[in-house]
Amino acid sequence: MVIDILRATSTIATALYNGAKAIIPVDSVEKCIQLGKKLECITAGERDGKVAEGLQYGNSSFEYPREFIEGKTLVLTTTNGTKLLHIALAKGSAEIITGSFLNLSAVSEHLISAKKNVILACAGWKDRVNMEDTLFAGALASAVKEHFQINCDSSAMASTIYEQAKGDLYGFMEANNASHYHRLTNFGLEKDIRHCLTANLANVLPYYQDERLIV
Amino acid sequence: MVIDILRATSTIATALYNGAKAIIPVDSVEKCIQLGKKLECITAGERDGKVAEGLQYGNSSFEYPREFIEGKTLVLTTTNGTKLLHIALAKGSAEIITGSFLNLSAVSEHLISAKKNVILACAGWKDRVNMEDTLFAGALASAVKEHFQINCDSSAMASTIYEQAKGDLYGFMEANNASHYHRLTNFGLEKDIRHCLTANLANVLPYYQDERLIV
Repeated sequence: MVIDILRATSTIATALYNGAKAIIPVDSVEKCIQLGKKLECITAGERDGKVAEGLQYGNSSFEYPREFIEGKTLVLTTTNGTKLLHIALAKGSAEIITGSFLNLSAVSEHLISAKKNVILACAGWKDRVNMEDTLFAGALASAVKEHFQINCDSSAMASTIYEQAKGDLYGFMEANNASHYHRLTNFGLEKDIRHCLTANLANVLPYYQDERLIV
Repeated sequence: MVIDILRATSTIATALYNGAKAIIPVDSVEKCIQLGKKLECITAGERDGKVAEGLQYGNSSFEYPREFIEGKTLVLTTTNGTKLLHIALAKGSAEIITGSFLNLSAVSEHLISAKKNVILACAGWKDRVNMEDTLFAGALASAVKEHFQINCDSSAMASTIYEQAKGDLYGFMEANNASHYHRLTNFGLEKDIRHCLTANLANVLPYYQDERLIV
């Protein structure tokens, strides 16, 4: 499971929930532009909190309401998320899904029914662990723990942090001056952060197949 | 600051507290044997919970009481700890110290008075994060936070875990089936774990200079 809460995997859940046909994740703006032309579909992606030059839309869930995205294919450039997808492919994962608070129940239920070994792959930020991905990993580990044997210090610690923070995830990020809270707040994206920390607003299971994410 | 709670940096604090002249950390059993012969000093190190073949002593604090270690030099092989020392050297650290619960106050006070940028380098286990090193990093971050500007998600998360666990660190490790709790308990080392989770039993500042750790 690929996790990139702020904001790739949250946006993926939202767009699919709102009826997007498919989302094609790519790792560069250049590929995004090329593929967008070739397939005649929507291109999206940000660099430093702004829509990247040459692309049409950004990384906010609010840009993808049903009336806009339904039935369409979106090519999305996400640096860390795509890197994780490629690692998962290279390691021969039996299946790849993406998770976020917005589709927490859908992915938890899938993991419980699938009965497979699971790696929670947190994108983090510039090769470092970050708070929101860890909080989500903890929420997920807590949600499925009755059904799994978890022998993993990082899962146990993520659950501890989540249990401590779950009453007010946004307040926890704020109080601890989380790096992404700080960064995105500087871009005026408080509303996005609050949205991405809310459970089950877009409860679908994004599944990776033939180089695209579908429900 | 190099951190390897179970048990390298705990043993280092204990041996120095009990009067060891110096501790020379090396990364292999072979180097440990060679240097032990050359310098005519004590050799120590474990592999898989037992004294490594060719060495004299193990990694337990209890093997280094004052009546044994006072005035002596110890060559200690620790895989992860030594690797971190070498990384710190390569990165040009202004100074290198080692930390453990056993010398928590001594290292905290040093950091506060030194007023330098600090990296808490947790050894972990087989390139993964582990619980006890994270707990100590959290204890330390909590202890010095009034004096530092900390913009780091992992420090904030480590502090959260420590604050949750501090009433009973051993119980927290046990309840969460921490990997090292599990591993060392299988070797009959509960007493060692409890010791290594106790604050300020060996309150010295181990300082790395000329390839050795001294007080």
